[in-house]
Amino acid sequence: MLQNHLLFSGVPNDKINEILSAIVAKKVAKGELIFMQEDSIKYLYYIKSGWVKIFTETVEGEEAIIDVLPTDNFFGDHALLEDDIVRYNAEAVDACEVQMIPIQIVRSLFFTSPEFAKNIVKYMSLKQKFRDKEIEHLSLQNAPQRIGCFLLRLCKTNQDSNVLLDLPYDKSLIASRLGMKSETFSRALNKLKREVGIDVRGNKILLSSVSSLSHYCCSSCSDSYPCDDKKAM
Amino acid sequence: MLQNHLLFSGVPNDKINEILSAIVAKKVAKGELIFMQEDSIKYLYYIKSGWVKIFTETVEGEEAIIDVLPTDNFFGDHALLEDDIVRYNAEAVDACEVQMIPIQIVRSLFFTSPEFAKNIVKYMSLKQKFRDKEIEHLSLQNAPQRIGCFLLRLCKTNQDSNVLLDLPYDKSLIASRLGMKSETFSRALNKLKREVGIDVRGNKILLSSVSSLSHYCCSSCSDSYPCDDKKAM
Repeated sequence: MLQNHLLFSGVPNDKINEILSAIVAKKVAKGELIFMQEDSIKYLYYIKSGWVKIFTETVEGEEAIIDVLPTDNFFGDHALLEDDIVRYNAEAVDACEVQMIPIQIVRSLFFTSPEFAKNIVKYMSLKQKFRDKEIEHLSLQNAPQRIGCFLLRLCKTNQDSNVLLDLPYDKSLIASRLGMKSETFSRALNKLKREVGIDVRGNKILLSSVSSLSHYCCSSCSDSYPCDDKKAM
Repeated sequence: MLQNHLLFSGVPNDKINEILSAIVAKKVAKGELIFMQEDSIKYLYYIKSGWVKIFTETVEGEEAIIDVLPTDNFFGDHALLEDDIVRYNAEAVDACEVQMIPIQIVRSLFFTSPEFAKNIVKYMSLKQKFRDKEIEHLSLQNAPQRIGCFLLRLCKTNQDSNVLLDLPYDKSLIASRLGMKSETFSRALNKLKREVGIDVRGNKILLSSVSSLSHYCCSSCSDSYPCDDKKAM
């Protein structure tokens, strides 16, 4: 999977093989910390399976969720050339498999493979795009719209009616991920039920109409459904 | 100024001279569009003086402010290698001077100067850091704290008491920049007056105590004052 990632697109085979032979694979248990803020960075991390929570803590001990990354994403890339210190904590949301590429190998690849250097910039630009969209949503969308947008990104089908979704992780983490308190999340979810007819069944959500939901959410967004953000899930 | 920017640090003189001789300088009037979303990108832009608003528009025509960039910042860099289309609108907040480097020259420099390639990644990583902090603030800080944080970033002094600040642009833009409606902004500013004793005089703000304000704002942040974010202003 890793070698098919856009980060390695066009990189010559001998370089890819060098990377593959240096990879350290690791299984991480649910809730286990992968690295801590201010650790020195030793690897570039690739999520082979599972979800990884990237977060910091405020002075008062509250968690600030920066991202919850799905399978097939990299993390730790911010420290690639910047400095040796990681900015965040990374924790396994569920049982995860991560593949770790020693950072020295990645740094050397950056200077010896123009394709890889180019891919790194493209990847960071794509991440910046998703961050910008996040800021846009936090600024302009209300809480029910942000939840609806999260659900739309989970849709993997072109079907419009009666789409059943599995929530990828528990509701309290979804709330934090969307920058909401639990109470706000519950109220917003209820509003979404009333206004666009979604049905919540434990960890599953039934969307009666994807187009109604997208009409409701995307009116406060600069993009329209289905948007690029879906790729980030 | 441009050649002293971190983007050009360590880049050989002949390459710098090539860039400098290709620069197109432009004066932009207040409110003038510099480029529009979906334009093809022709330049990397550097703000020599003034402020530039980066924004998109929602389907319903509401402005989503992605950033308001001060002097000594680049924009358009997201499209450097990604594609030829700009993602945002860029508009002069006040009378600006921009320096425009033809994108082909920047692209060629990326592949011929490893120092420049490295600087680009460092610069994007720094931008990502500020974006992540923005997301953290929008998620965890309340409206008065976000305004206070904005004011703290304007402080250019080590003095603690009676610090007089000039607001860099009008209050309605500050409100949008912070992801608030104007009414929320006014209420939050009044709360800040009552709770930490700031004094608003038109376009100037008097902080009676920087430490009280930072104590009030930074308790809901993962950083403490003075933080790296100040560099972004």
